[in-house]
Amino acid sequence: MKALVYHGPGQKALEDRPKPTLQAPGDAIVRIVKTTICGTDLHILKGDVPTCTPGRILGHEGVGIVDSVGAAVTAFKPGDRVLISCISSCGKCDNCRRGMYSHCATGGWILGNTIDGTQAEYVRTPHADTSLYRIPDGADEEALVMLSDILPTGFECGVLNGKVAPGSSVAIVGAGPIGLAALLTAQFYAPAEIVMIDLDDNRLDVARRFGATHTINSADGKAADKVKALTGGRGVDTAIEAVGVPATFLICQDVVAPGGVIANVGVHGIKVDLHLERLWSQNVAITTRLVDTVSTPMLLKTVQSRRLDPGQLITHRFALGDILAAYDTFSRAADTRALKVIISA
Amino acid sequence: MKALVYHGPGQKALEDRPKPTLQAPGDAIVRIVKTTICGTDLHILKGDVPTCTPGRILGHEGVGIVDSVGAAVTAFKPGDRVLISCISSCGKCDNCRRGMYSHCATGGWILGNTIDGTQAEYVRTPHADTSLYRIPDGADEEALVMLSDILPTGFECGVLNGKVAPGSSVAIVGAGPIGLAALLTAQFYAPAEIVMIDLDDNRLDVARRFGATHTINSADGKAADKVKALTGGRGVDTAIEAVGVPATFLICQDVVAPGGVIANVGVHGIKVDLHLERLWSQNVAITTRLVDTVSTPMLLKTVQSRRLDPGQLITHRFALGDILAAYDTFSRAADTRALKVIISA
Amino acid sequence: MKALVYHGPGQKALEDRPKPTLQAPGDAIVRIVKTTICGTDLHILKGDVPTCTPGRILGHEGVGIVDSVGAAVTAFKPGDRVLISCISSCGKCDNCRRGMYSHCATGGWILGNTIDGTQAEYVRTPHADTSLYRIPDGADEEALVMLSDILPTGFECGVLNGKVAPGSSVAIVGAGPIGLAALLTAQFYAPAEIVMIDLDDNRLDVARRFGATHTINSADGKAADKVKALTGGRGVDTAIEAVGVPATFLICQDVVAPGGVIANVGVHGIKVDLHLERLWSQNVAITTRLVDTVSTPMLLKTVQSRRLDPGQLITHRFALGDILAAYDTFSRAADTRALKVIISA
Amino acid sequence: MKALVYHGPGQKALEDRPKPTLQAPGDAIVRIVKTTICGTDLHILKGDVPTCTPGRILGHEGVGIVDSVGAAVTAFKPGDRVLISCISSCGKCDNCRRGMYSHCATGGWILGNTIDGTQAEYVRTPHADTSLYRIPDGADEEALVMLSDILPTGFECGVLNGKVAPGSSVAIVGAGPIGLAALLTAQFYAPAEIVMIDLDDNRLDVARRFGATHTINSADGKAADKVKALTGGRGVDTAIEAVGVPATFLICQDVVAPGGVIANVGVHGIKVDLHLERLWSQNVAITTRLVDTVSTPMLLKTVQSRRLDPGQLITHRFALGDILAAYDTFSRAADTRALKVIISA
Repeated sequence: MKALVYHGPGQKALEDRPKPTLQAPGDAIVRIVKTTICGTDLHILKGDVPTCTPGRILGHEGVGIVDSVGAAVTAFKPGDRVLISCISSCGKCDNCRRGMYSHCATGGWILGNTIDGTQAEYVRTPHADTSLYRIPDGADEEALVMLSDILPTGFECGVLNGKVAPGSSVAIVGAGPIGLAALLTAQFYAPAEIVMIDLDDNRLDVARRFGATHTINSADGKAADKVKALTGGRGVDTAIEAVGVPATFLICQDVVAPGGVIANVGVHGIKVDLHLERLWSQNVAITTRLVDTVSTPMLLKTVQSRRLDPGQLITHRFALGDILAAYDTFSRAADTRALKVIISA
Repeated sequence: MKALVYHGPGQKALEDRPKPTLQAPGDAIVRIVKTTICGTDLHILKGDVPTCTPGRILGHEGVGIVDSVGAAVTAFKPGDRVLISCISSCGKCDNCRRGMYSHCATGGWILGNTIDGTQAEYVRTPHADTSLYRIPDGADEEALVMLSDILPTGFECGVLNGKVAPGSSVAIVGAGPIGLAALLTAQFYAPAEIVMIDLDDNRLDVARRFGATHTINSADGKAADKVKALTGGRGVDTAIEAVGVPATFLICQDVVAPGGVIANVGVHGIKVDLHLERLWSQNVAITTRLVDTVSTPMLLKTVQSRRLDPGQLITHRFALGDILAAYDTFSRAADTRALKVIISA
Repeated sequence: MKALVYHGPGQKALEDRPKPTLQAPGDAIVRIVKTTICGTDLHILKGDVPTCTPGRILGHEGVGIVDSVGAAVTAFKPGDRVLISCISSCGKCDNCRRGMYSHCATGGWILGNTIDGTQAEYVRTPHADTSLYRIPDGADEEALVMLSDILPTGFECGVLNGKVAPGSSVAIVGAGPIGLAALLTAQFYAPAEIVMIDLDDNRLDVARRFGATHTINSADGKAADKVKALTGGRGVDTAIEAVGVPATFLICQDVVAPGGVIANVGVHGIKVDLHLERLWSQNVAITTRLVDTVSTPMLLKTVQSRRLDPGQLITHRFALGDILAAYDTFSRAADTRALKVIISA
Repeated sequence: MKALVYHGPGQKALEDRPKPTLQAPGDAIVRIVKTTICGTDLHILKGDVPTCTPGRILGHEGVGIVDSVGAAVTAFKPGDRVLISCISSCGKCDNCRRGMYSHCATGGWILGNTIDGTQAEYVRTPHADTSLYRIPDGADEEALVMLSDILPTGFECGVLNGKVAPGSSVAIVGAGPIGLAALLTAQFYAPAEIVMIDLDDNRLDVARRFGATHTINSADGKAADKVKALTGGRGVDTAIEAVGVPATFLICQDVVAPGGVIANVGVHGIKVDLHLERLWSQNVAITTRLVDTVSTPMLLKTVQSRRLDPGQLITHRFALGDILAAYDTFSRAADTRALKVIISA
């Protein structure tokens, strides 16, 4: 089968690889229908993810059709249309039983990382009963690809952790796909203000279309001052960090109001300064989270009931045979204005 | 000044009464600009509220302008435009400090009940600092009259107690003003389904315009079956009782799913049957609440940010001099299609 | 093997039955070491539980040693010492994934009810990976039998649902084993007062030894008045109903303070009166729950750390061959002063 | 009257000062019966608290007898015995109404900081109705001095923010008075393990007597490794930082388990490193808080019901005339083994 294979920093290739086979009673083999590329895939290609070794098929998102299942799988059968979660969850370990699937003892983020992933014609999914989700009849499958990772990430790590609430004020630092996913799902809770902060005016335009009440280009270094001015000097109830560098985390510390939350979503490569000398008395919480995808069933319902339209995030479409072009488009997002690219297998 | 006075069951009159005066350091006198009539006022007129004695000026809702304040009032001064909460809260007692203003040791629902109310040119409001809310510049004052009682009631007793959540299913039994207030504020949380149940097709039409995803006329006695059918046999996560009679409370027991909540909003005059012989094992919660109006500041923000338009509930307008006609219109709602009537003083 | 078999209302026998065998990949066969008898077993014998049909081996509690496991079982192997939960949980269905194991689509309370139970030398346990719990080395196995049902029931349905909190006041109506389990686990949260109410002075003596701060014999019909007097007229924050009849549920309605919770634990056979005509405005919650046993891992930790000594509940011990005598002792608790009886297989 | 006055870094004196007088309708004058010294007073004397200017009477803790009250005070009258909260709360502003008294618009920590404090014969307490607490008859007044600041601080900032729960594991870094207050109040929630970490073996001995299940002297730099070893490599559910320097905050980052909380209590003078490069995916929360004293009524109940004995923290007693000796003893705690010193006025 065709598959996109990582070959070490800066190296990838579209190759022919054997179709995967069942290895454990809980496995399923899924034929990929649609997949996509994540910012994390670009991190891997930069060499930033040492757990992902050369030879790995990338990709941890997608929808597909069940091809075969192991003896212990009871919830799915061949022919079922399924959403593949980026997080594999055994459903049995202590962490899974408390809803923290990201730290599953035998799962977590393994697809396209420590085992072969979804940017291929077929994928083996461990713990299939608790890591796949049935696609409702008539659903828009492209839109549901957004539910593999980006929407639960923006929602769980940003919106839920950030305690977005009716009438509250929210600042989201970073208007990339993940920040936009937070923006879309923050609106489940009717906040009064959602301020989007980024360096790219195009993305800020998108943010306004997606429901931001205010946008700020932070190029002049005055984003925090502007947020304070917008909120009568008080700051915001929720600051969502959706970039992953010290400077954006600092903006969050500068804009969070007493009693507020800084919800970190970004993937950080280095430590940051935490200004406890002023925050110790500010009654704030700072949260981190690797997405658990525990909200996937709920998100499916909001898509089905048209409270959420994740298809808005899709800007480009490619065939699996053209996945190298898809990577190129996605990696040059400032030029191509790409948000999420759909790859059809 | 002109005032609408209760004179015992079935008896009311528009009379001339002395302008109220400050009686305690925490009092304010407010000149009424707009007020309205509540279903509770009709209950009083039926003789159902023994704490309200003849001679009482009715009314517990309204917006106005501060006329004078007592020596201890620090948050307001004459000339301030204010929203009057139906609940007076001292801010000091144990119940107020835990946010249960409805059971304030020296307040609670007293306006138009145990002390004179707002259907008059002026009203004395005790505990002014913690029972009045400043009206933002440029706000629609008519719409804000809905925040004195009906919107916090629908929201706190129905939506918050009912734990409405993104993707969840909600049934609201009773499409009167209070049920519609629950319907409007339930949408803060993006539920997947909101089923409105009533006997009046006009009100069900209104409910659809206000955002109900399904409506059911319960005249045929099959409402519960229909809700079950709509939810794949499971029932709803939240059942909101907004009528106050045994039959509607029974519908709620019949439609609540395992793990769900029955949030009672209705004012009940007699006991109801609770079917613990089947509910004991169903992991449900049944909640009651007299509105605390603790959500008023938040609701003000949602109105200011246009997430909520309470003006939709207003169907008729009268001058204070015509308040008897307003009562007539409001009390014959099935004929007049009245929801809330505004009275301008 | 020896087994206690239900043969219809009033009929039971100790019989020889074939040893159970694995039927599904997720099954385990467990050799019983210790089991016990539950009040629910007496209900079955009265004919009150129609789902339990003649021929059924009773019992849903116990500790044992894994004898064999199905192909899909990964968490246990033969020889492991395990606690058997009264609730079977698949870990996969919607209800299991939200922690409501009691309503598992293919589990819930099935042991000794719709499938053969634990009052035998061996039992088949479905969904073994998520329904058995490893017993720590050196643990007191007799004490752990109390964790199969009674302690999680008292804790989850009474204490957790009842929101017992530091400094709060609690009334527990019913000082049988389940009420005592609530009493023991309520002390995890340092409430200021725990008032135990029962008709049996012996059980009230036990309650005082187990940590009740006050006891009331309700024979004179004045229990509610006495609770009110003890709490300065306010009532209690938490009222736990641990009997299951209308009269005790009424006491709970009479003693709950505004803002409080009535946590129902009792199994009710008939409907009760709910006095919404006074409770509608009292900001109370009434909760029901079939135990989920979601707290079992936590309870194991509290036993291991000696915060909880469940062995206090054990009053009598029998061999499996004498289980009929055990039933006799347990069913005449008022005379025998039995709380929980241990049966060794 | 006698008063302890701050005269700039390193300078303090016991002086004669005029008795304070009522300045606002909500004020009370309280005659001090007992007061104490806080670590924060030592910070002021080092010059670390710029809001506290020379000439200020220090002290923000104490019990006393109401001497006079302003016209708006309704909850207290002369002669009432009261506990003085370290936080003044107006009960009216947005922050007070949400329970965040520490950020009261006209209060917060002002006593002995921006207005004169309690280390004197009399003190003026603003917002008396909502900043004083009636002392129950027969209460141990010395013990209650611990409820002015140290116990609510340990409880709210450490235990509540840290989400200590039955069966959970807790590490407290710092066994000074504030860490010990967290230790005492953590036991309200029956955690399975409480590991106390400090450099002072005497304080660790005290911690064991106060309920710590394990103690670690961190002088060898291996505290984090030892905590990991004690918890099977997993780390703790709650890490409480009760020192206020980068090194102790780092220990907390090293020992918190995935899904856990770092609850900061310490007052920090400089920024710290936050290792988001490893914590971003660990599902942790880091919380900060200036005590709100919202738990004071609850803590009073736990003292009255003997669930909590704060008197254990008192090691030394002085008369107000000897307060300079009290400061000396308290500031040389390593030598004197002082925890809290009581000063009688």
